[in-house]
Amino acid sequence: MGKALIIGAGGVASVVVHKCVQNPDVFEEICIASRTLSKCEALKTKLDGGRTKISVAQVDADRTEEVVELIKSFGPDIVINVALPYQDLTIMDACLETGVHYLDTANYEPLDNPKFEYKWQWAYREKFEKAGLTAVLGSGFDPGVTGVFSAYALKHYFDEIHQIDIVDANAGDHGYPFATNFNPEINIREITAKGRYWENGEWVETEPLSEKKVYDLPQIGPKDIYLLYHEELESLAQNMPGLKKIRFWMTFSQNYLNHLKVLENVGMTSIEPIEFEGQKIAPLQFLKAVLPDPASLGPRTKGKTNIGCIFQGTKNGEPKTYYVYNVCDHEECYREVGSQAISYTTGVPAMIGAMMVLKGLWKKPGVYNVEEFDPDPFMEELNKQGLPWVEDFSPTLLD
Amino acid sequence: MGKALIIGAGGVASVVVHKCVQNPDVFEEICIASRTLSKCEALKTKLDGGRTKISVAQVDADRTEEVVELIKSFGPDIVINVALPYQDLTIMDACLETGVHYLDTANYEPLDNPKFEYKWQWAYREKFEKAGLTAVLGSGFDPGVTGVFSAYALKHYFDEIHQIDIVDANAGDHGYPFATNFNPEINIREITAKGRYWENGEWVETEPLSEKKVYDLPQIGPKDIYLLYHEELESLAQNMPGLKKIRFWMTFSQNYLNHLKVLENVGMTSIEPIEFEGQKIAPLQFLKAVLPDPASLGPRTKGKTNIGCIFQGTKNGEPKTYYVYNVCDHEECYREVGSQAISYTTGVPAMIGAMMVLKGLWKKPGVYNVEEFDPDPFMEELNKQGLPWVEDFSPTLLD
Repeated sequence: MGKALIIGAGGVASVVVHKCVQNPDVFEEICIASRTLSKCEALKTKLDGGRTKISVAQVDADRTEEVVELIKSFGPDIVINVALPYQDLTIMDACLETGVHYLDTANYEPLDNPKFEYKWQWAYREKFEKAGLTAVLGSGFDPGVTGVFSAYALKHYFDEIHQIDIVDANAGDHGYPFATNFNPEINIREITAKGRYWENGEWVETEPLSEKKVYDLPQIGPKDIYLLYHEELESLAQNMPGLKKIRFWMTFSQNYLNHLKVLENVGMTSIEPIEFEGQKIAPLQFLKAVLPDPASLGPRTKGKTNIGCIFQGTKNGEPKTYYVYNVCDHEECYREVGSQAISYTTGVPAMIGAMMVLKGLWKKPGVYNVEEFDPDPFMEELNKQGLPWVEDFSPTLLD
Repeated sequence: MGKALIIGAGGVASVVVHKCVQNPDVFEEICIASRTLSKCEALKTKLDGGRTKISVAQVDADRTEEVVELIKSFGPDIVINVALPYQDLTIMDACLETGVHYLDTANYEPLDNPKFEYKWQWAYREKFEKAGLTAVLGSGFDPGVTGVFSAYALKHYFDEIHQIDIVDANAGDHGYPFATNFNPEINIREITAKGRYWENGEWVETEPLSEKKVYDLPQIGPKDIYLLYHEELESLAQNMPGLKKIRFWMTFSQNYLNHLKVLENVGMTSIEPIEFEGQKIAPLQFLKAVLPDPASLGPRTKGKTNIGCIFQGTKNGEPKTYYVYNVCDHEECYREVGSQAISYTTGVPAMIGAMMVLKGLWKKPGVYNVEEFDPDPFMEELNKQGLPWVEDFSPTLLD
């Protein structure tokens, strides 16, 4: 059916590649490109031999001209951007210049002031419209599936949705007293940032981790959940008509928060270099070297994730509630694609989003968030591609 | 009256020097000697000009011959050893060779197997007896004043002491979320070591920090106290006739224990070097560099210490209880001698012990712990020299 250029070769990219290869009718040919060619080659070596033709390329996605050159030589129908959020715009520019569709999983962030905000990418709407190209923003799990869940709820079960609570729970256990799945810098930013939610047309700010509840999650059990800001709140607040309130909740264990807090207290999370035996060393860099390698967590992580949306609204004048969620098992993911559920739940929806575009189901000129497309074919694929969802019409509500 | 050679130039040594200079009738001449001559010179520069004549010298106290040479050239009456515990024996050897009295504040520990045990120094008893020299062991606060308190209690208030509980509380606040007063390695050893106390002629071992009580300390308030082993238990168990039970308790805050635990969990307290950018770096060494410099804590520490002994026994066939303690204020100490209470409470008793020897009040050939001397003149000096004590004849008892 088509050709996809996958930019990135990290954990999420690896899942995307695995899943593309599982769908060779759609992904006839893929090119895996990243700064580090050896990582691309390792993926090719592992997955070559099926019906999907795999090639690799070295590319610096910070440089639009390099991406343009690569697109021209490979000739893809879509670029799946699973590189760094700092590189979204250079890659979108390259797509515009070469006339190729675009998809990513996380909003652009300026390197000097990282921020969850769509404004930079939404500014490309007219350019993509005029070029007759589709850009799909945020096609991971959250953002991504949470937006599709919202569109699906509205389409099938509600006349109006008044409240959405997105709950993201990771009950994985890697057996270490403390380790991080990804960059501890990002972990720390998450828990030290102010919370924010949207209510009655306005953003309400909360102190970091000040809003805490306990929620009993299906297949996981009761967990501490904390109100955070998350990027899909911005687009959903605009795209869901009649919405009065939307919040995002994430689980953190007391143990995790305590470890991060202590490390912050003593200065081990600082990126300001200190003088050590005549050298300048950033404490955070040293901490990363002491902590377990995130790559080592995959094979030893047990337990499940549960991410879903709790909706409150009305249907035919009657109050209605609906909870739709996916439960994903770390060990099963690892067995299937060599990555645990954190990467899996992001990579699978990226592949599905690209599939929607290649199949012509999600094709309209412009820049769109996932909830602006028809959710039905995407929801169908979730069930087929390893992220089945469960519906509950009388869930416990978050007040 | 006499000449004292002070070996060491750290926090405790600095207090000893300040206090000697305050007592020029006893300490007519002192020599400050350490590996780092500049530290000795700094102390001399600060304190010169009074009636006590001050000289300085460079010495490696690991090398008996260097200490012998220094003693021969300076000609002291006593050596006050406030260097490292690893150096007790080399300095005792030098005293024996040159015919000089000896005093220290902490028991000898072999470098390769640090341990609280007096056996190595008690093995010198006969040598000091034959040489007609006095060696005073452990003349700090604990060990030190706690032994003098015990001898004083027995001499004046009890026929028999059955139980002693030593309670060491530091309610100092340096304003940092976490910092250590001294080597974090020693802090960690303290809280990860098994506890031990003596009861009915036997040593009883307890799991690390497993014995916890709350004690309401005068001028400080209720604190968590934990049972630890401490070196004076060994000598007091032998030197207090009729004793049935002796324990040592130290305060640790939940916050302090939590920080140490987390740092241990993530591997930051390990002395095993890790590979970092082509170099081998021990995490503990790096942690020390990140934590506030212990020397910086003095000027900013507020609050008090309270160290004392709670006695239970009999007098004239009646049960009797007695609690004697000293409260020391960190800021007052810093104003007086430029060190906070931790160094102050150790340095002042070292000076007093040396004063006892120079005055001929604590002079008997052999190696002795402080409780084996007459406590009265020492107790009198505590009140004069900045460590006044308080008596309570109906204290709350520790069961």
